[in-house]
Amino acid sequence: MSKTNTGNFFEDFKIGQIITHATPRTVTTGDVALYTALYGSRFAVQSADAFAQAIGYEESPIDDLLVFHIVFGKTVPDISLNAVANLGYADCRFLAPVYSGDTLSATSEVIGLKENSNGQTGVVYVRSRGFNQSHELVLEYVRWVMVRKRDVNSPAPAEVVPKLPRALAPDQLGDACPIIDAKKYDFALAGSKHRWGDYLPGEKIDHVDGMTVEESEHMLATRLYQNTAKVHFNQYTEGQGRFGRRLIYGGHVISLARSLSFNGLGNAFHIAAINGGRHVSPLFAGLTVFAWTEVIERAEIPGRDDVGALRLRTIATKDQPTAAHPLMIDEKNYDPSVILDLDYWVLMPR
Amino acid sequence: MSKTNTGNFFEDFKIGQIITHATPRTVTTGDVALYTALYGSRFAVQSADAFAQAIGYEESPIDDLLVFHIVFGKTVPDISLNAVANLGYADCRFLAPVYSGDTLSATSEVIGLKENSNGQTGVVYVRSRGFNQSHELVLEYVRWVMVRKRDVNSPAPAEVVPKLPRALAPDQLGDACPIIDAKKYDFALAGSKHRWGDYLPGEKIDHVDGMTVEESEHMLATRLYQNTAKVHFNQYTEGQGRFGRRLIYGGHVISLARSLSFNGLGNAFHIAAINGGRHVSPLFAGLTVFAWTEVIERAEIPGRDDVGALRLRTIATKDQPTAAHPLMIDEKNYDPSVILDLDYWVLMPR
Amino acid sequence: MSKTNTGNFFEDFKIGQIITHATPRTVTTGDVALYTALYGSRFAVQSADAFAQAIGYEESPIDDLLVFHIVFGKTVPDISLNAVANLGYADCRFLAPVYSGDTLSATSEVIGLKENSNGQTGVVYVRSRGFNQSHELVLEYVRWVMVRKRDVNSPAPAEVVPKLPRALAPDQLGDACPIIDAKKYDFALAGSKHRWGDYLPGEKIDHVDGMTVEESEHMLATRLYQNTAKVHFNQYTEGQGRFGRRLIYGGHVISLARSLSFNGLGNAFHIAAINGGRHVSPLFAGLTVFAWTEVIERAEIPGRDDVGALRLRTIATKDQPTAAHPLMIDEKNYDPSVILDLDYWVLMPR
Repeated sequence: MSKTNTGNFFEDFKIGQIITHATPRTVTTGDVALYTALYGSRFAVQSADAFAQAIGYEESPIDDLLVFHIVFGKTVPDISLNAVANLGYADCRFLAPVYSGDTLSATSEVIGLKENSNGQTGVVYVRSRGFNQSHELVLEYVRWVMVRKRDVNSPAPAEVVPKLPRALAPDQLGDACPIIDAKKYDFALAGSKHRWGDYLPGEKIDHVDGMTVEESEHMLATRLYQNTAKVHFNQYTEGQGRFGRRLIYGGHVISLARSLSFNGLGNAFHIAAINGGRHVSPLFAGLTVFAWTEVIERAEIPGRDDVGALRLRTIATKDQPTAAHPLMIDEKNYDPSVILDLDYWVLMPR
Repeated sequence: MSKTNTGNFFEDFKIGQIITHATPRTVTTGDVALYTALYGSRFAVQSADAFAQAIGYEESPIDDLLVFHIVFGKTVPDISLNAVANLGYADCRFLAPVYSGDTLSATSEVIGLKENSNGQTGVVYVRSRGFNQSHELVLEYVRWVMVRKRDVNSPAPAEVVPKLPRALAPDQLGDACPIIDAKKYDFALAGSKHRWGDYLPGEKIDHVDGMTVEESEHMLATRLYQNTAKVHFNQYTEGQGRFGRRLIYGGHVISLARSLSFNGLGNAFHIAAINGGRHVSPLFAGLTVFAWTEVIERAEIPGRDDVGALRLRTIATKDQPTAAHPLMIDEKNYDPSVILDLDYWVLMPR
Repeated sequence: MSKTNTGNFFEDFKIGQIITHATPRTVTTGDVALYTALYGSRFAVQSADAFAQAIGYEESPIDDLLVFHIVFGKTVPDISLNAVANLGYADCRFLAPVYSGDTLSATSEVIGLKENSNGQTGVVYVRSRGFNQSHELVLEYVRWVMVRKRDVNSPAPAEVVPKLPRALAPDQLGDACPIIDAKKYDFALAGSKHRWGDYLPGEKIDHVDGMTVEESEHMLATRLYQNTAKVHFNQYTEGQGRFGRRLIYGGHVISLARSLSFNGLGNAFHIAAINGGRHVSPLFAGLTVFAWTEVIERAEIPGRDDVGALRLRTIATKDQPTAAHPLMIDEKNYDPSVILDLDYWVLMPR
């Protein structure tokens, strides 16, 4: 029997099955420093213990997306090693703050299966969950991937397609954000004077700056997350493939866009939920990422007057500045520069 | 009103104005590891807690230049986002040791203003200060930059040009260095047997080794410092600019030269002050940095017999080994290989 | 007298001489994060404090190879700055776990000298030792290098060639691994169900994945180890040399192969010893590293029933997948794709 991991194929997944993922991971200030070096993030809550403690955190929490990437990375060897395509994700909520020293582990529950009509592949829906060392749930999200069958003759499973929300409701947001003392929130130190109430649905914000990506950067990032997806690391094989290039992990683009978004959203200190996202086209090293954001919705969080929620749609582009808010060229087709279309909720002081 | 930071223009600065900079930053051993990986620094005091504690530090202090870069980075969005040129810095003193876990923040006080005769730009002088979480001053320096006016018709301010010292005096040095137990300073572990008294004014030291710089390295470094100057990160825009290349942050060159200087200055464990520096010409990725140093002055520090001060002039070059001490080609012009001319004080055990 | 280190030449070494190396180095979680980012290592013991503590470690130990690289790096300025060739290493044992916060230092004892018949070079054998801040021995190994003479007329020393073991014996293994509670070792979290007893001598394992190396990555790594060997960093000089390229530190290849070997050896959580290794040909940036392993021997460790030892031979290649186990093309010559042939002992739960 082979000792190497060949990954799961479509017929290996069963509804209700819970997969325990390797490798648990202690998150440290070393990871935080690397995350800063990779993206240049400047949100004060994640950058300074003194700032975070003043408003009610134990210390600076680990960046939400770093938590996401680490949990996501764990699921790859079991869920998407034989994936033909990452189709989507939804219903992603951050449920408890993660601090330096916490050990993260992950499981995935199979919640949907649908064989494709070609009989060669199928769509697997999993709800992945990240836990800390006290078995507290810190993150959960649903994603669905198209996976190859090992044996095309294996019978199709009963079709189960989960019903997923288009967006999280405001009353589901904020579990990972302690009640903050908004009077202690120093807007000068935070780098922006704009509060939750200053943003209006329909408002579009160009984040102005561009960031060029290098091969070593996206590989350092993706290895930091212990994400083993082959397409990111192996130029020998990818050089003979469809693009001739290593593909950049989609999460790297999300983190770049989030970091760029500080310029215009400096007080959006916490991502509370990701409603969905689309990696519209691939990014390659040498290209420069820009981003802009539209405010989709402004919502109070029931029972809280310290922070409010903004639902944002952030668009990232490659080699295309975003002052003109590039998005669609017609009803169906994205502008060719668009690489990411992300729908998510952030929290801001009121 | 735009939510993005457009930076300050010349007419936004007023004499006496104090600007609080975003983003406070907790410095950690993660930053130290990255700093080591970026420059390969080998000074024992900053490398080993056991060594630092033996001579009187609480633990290894954060490298002086890492402190400088972090504080400097904070000032960029407010001071130099609309800068045409970084003209100089002076009067830079390190005033208290910074340890892992300390949170740094920064302010700048406007101490000089001088509109240029063209009426389109002006020179702004600021005294920038870095503080720790106990509001203790850890660093201060003056820098002056040429900044665009937003409105060329805005009136010129009264001209104020601060008087700046050519060099710090010896009695102003050493506040960031505790009284050390020089008998516990292990010269074998430190990697050099040469003490303060072994260096003579006029002595020239070739640091021998060369270090090639890659795009991802200088960008990782500059993001680590949360320095947002656009010219370092955006190949899309810079590719259409004057050099066709991303410019490397001048502080990256200083740190490379400092690290190379270990070979010949192994016991110069603390930079006490920077008298001034000139970034003679730009550095680009792919080029190799070399460095040599001339000892300008040797000074006792009044009241201290543990350490003495050396005033050094370190010259960094690109693609030019420094055995022949390249510097000027005539009275006015630098050798074209020279990229940095730095005048600073270091401390060494006596 | 020159202040720069010119390194030791052949006639500077004396049998019995003990050299204290600079620079002591505190290892931190920052180093751990960088190590993860550089190689993507996924062994659970080194990744998660909670996992390590469950089986009997104080917390996650520092990766064995990170300890090796840091100790090795210290020896370079004294042992191999004037080396013509790194000829080999042997008898390498890990003797105590190293934890975040420990300060490592190193010495080398000269145990062999043999002038070459050309009278211009000689072979120096040293036993290098790494210590923690409590002067506890954490690592030792022998290496031998060919070093230039400063003065070809200096007399040849008496020839001493140490007798070195071809491999460590099983009873010499395991000092750096506490007695583990194998019942608490969670094979699902570890990512592999294969125990020590599941591996058979003669078994060959292809580790499948490939990892492309970038210039900035190997330089970040080698600087992190404070290894100053000139050939890794200086494109200006190396560009005019034999290969026209910077050479990649051989230890970088070992760490890449070790990380790739997780796929197939996921429970080989500790390298107990390195019997020997050969860097068959150089690696350059842009090439992709693959690896495969043959199990050479399976051994019980006298007095321990928690873990057993596997003696492994791991072969790394460049730009050559390893499903066919490339190795020799005839009795004497390696396949041209082979870059590393490493013989070592790992421990696995029984």
